[in-house]
Amino acid sequence: MINVLFAARDDRWPTYAPELIRAFDAAGLKVNMQQDLAPEVVDYIIYAPNSDLQDFTPYTRCKAVLNLWAGVEAIVTNPTLTQPLARMVDFGLTQGMVEWVTAHVMRYHIGIDHNLEHQQGKWVRALPPLSRDRPVTILGMGELGSACATMLTQLGFPVTGWSRSPKEIPGVTCLSGDAGLKQALESAQILVTLLPLTAGTENLMNAERLSWLPKGAFLINPGRGPLIDDDALLAALNSGQIARATLDVFRVEPLPEAHPYWSHPQVTVTPHIAADTRAETAAEVIADNVARSQRGEELRYLVDRTLGY
Amino acid sequence: MINVLFAARDDRWPTYAPELIRAFDAAGLKVNMQQDLAPEVVDYIIYAPNSDLQDFTPYTRCKAVLNLWAGVEAIVTNPTLTQPLARMVDFGLTQGMVEWVTAHVMRYHIGIDHNLEHQQGKWVRALPPLSRDRPVTILGMGELGSACATMLTQLGFPVTGWSRSPKEIPGVTCLSGDAGLKQALESAQILVTLLPLTAGTENLMNAERLSWLPKGAFLINPGRGPLIDDDALLAALNSGQIARATLDVFRVEPLPEAHPYWSHPQVTVTPHIAADTRAETAAEVIADNVARSQRGEELRYLVDRTLGY
Repeated sequence: MINVLFAARDDRWPTYAPELIRAFDAAGLKVNMQQDLAPEVVDYIIYAPNSDLQDFTPYTRCKAVLNLWAGVEAIVTNPTLTQPLARMVDFGLTQGMVEWVTAHVMRYHIGIDHNLEHQQGKWVRALPPLSRDRPVTILGMGELGSACATMLTQLGFPVTGWSRSPKEIPGVTCLSGDAGLKQALESAQILVTLLPLTAGTENLMNAERLSWLPKGAFLINPGRGPLIDDDALLAALNSGQIARATLDVFRVEPLPEAHPYWSHPQVTVTPHIAADTRAETAAEVIADNVARSQRGEELRYLVDRTLGY
Repeated sequence: MINVLFAARDDRWPTYAPELIRAFDAAGLKVNMQQDLAPEVVDYIIYAPNSDLQDFTPYTRCKAVLNLWAGVEAIVTNPTLTQPLARMVDFGLTQGMVEWVTAHVMRYHIGIDHNLEHQQGKWVRALPPLSRDRPVTILGMGELGSACATMLTQLGFPVTGWSRSPKEIPGVTCLSGDAGLKQALESAQILVTLLPLTAGTENLMNAERLSWLPKGAFLINPGRGPLIDDDALLAALNSGQIARATLDVFRVEPLPEAHPYWSHPQVTVTPHIAADTRAETAAEVIADNVARSQRGEELRYLVDRTLGY
């Protein structure tokens, strides 16, 4: 029997415990997981950095600390933590983003909205172009952006990926820097914004840069709300420069009920669902790491304590 | 200069000529294409079987006849045709189908309709499941069905493919026969019907078989209209057995203005656009075959005159 301490706030238990039990079971591990265990019997600690546990000294038998989320900045400098520490890299988060982005790209590409709005008995055939004739640009070539780019190339789209610093991704036209940004936007019939929010990316899609897109482009923002200058986007939608936009993230969330995005006929608001850490897939990552440790293998996503991540 | 006779009805010329000229040019071929040429100078004939040209005897210099469509039954028995004959296999048709099916599968999977119908300022988060937890079944594992199945497996869906006779497609759970049909339907949260129309497939999706699907399944029919028992489908939509349906093909096309499908809130009618032969990609197939012939290589999609296809 493997003793696992679940060291997170109480409200996390009902979400994570059933998924963890299922994942340990699927991995063939006999686990006794509790929110409270005598320190000297604990084999592994599942850890949320905002939990009460801050002194790891008495956990003399603990083989590893498995972080519940990606961020480890609150624990990595704790001098009492002498065991291996693993970050969370939830493949469900990336996969969910790829699925959401693919769905909205395909929706605009095939013209589903047009079909939905013409259900009045009029049979008007208009074949959409093939994906190879529909250039898509993704701003941001981190883990999420590059995973989306790769899937869209598999669907046949010519994909341009833009990032601050140069990248190389097979099958994707990679551009970078200020000059690359203009080139990336000028060809983009569908634009996906997946950049992190920094001083350099806030309001990146302002009136000028929206005007660089081909007229009638589609905008999909699952990245960060402030990447978009909201007033400039509303003006571009009203002028027809942007045909339609799907927005998943906003400066203020929940998006206030009176915000014009909700009622704009060309805008689809989705409630920050494009990607999230999922208890189900996070539990599988933790169970996999416990199984690896039990077999004497190295943990995945080990934190480099000198680098701090 | 290569002399090409375009032997099809006049109304095809404006659709195909620009695409053929573009395709010949892209293939580096110097071509003189006309609707009327002296038979003795013709190097290739682009041929629609319903054209006036039926006697190939005077075309003594002609190296090949390149069919504009897939069907060759009207020309294959013509005794005056002694040149090689190539069918049309338009990759744009398959690719278009894969894109259309992927778009509607992703739309239902991610719940885009739900988002579109809730744009009244209410922020209600509900994460869709990952594709790996959304079983999709495709009825019909011909060229179109199997291409769709392969793309959906790349997107992470567990895909079941059903066909009358057994098939093997990598990554796809292939079922066949009557017993296999029940199994294929029982797991299908999203069902795509891509069977040919035969006496055995007419009304395949009747009330009983619709009841085999899990409650709340989605139905997508880009195959043939009569695969579906329309009254049974309307009843299943009204009872909630089928959550939503997208229908691209119908018993009578154009779908009559008064047909209940047009006005049903759970039905999306699309006007037979899921797949069609495209002048653009058909022209590339023809140009590729002329280029092969000019290089002394064998034509692609050569008709076997003893088999008749």
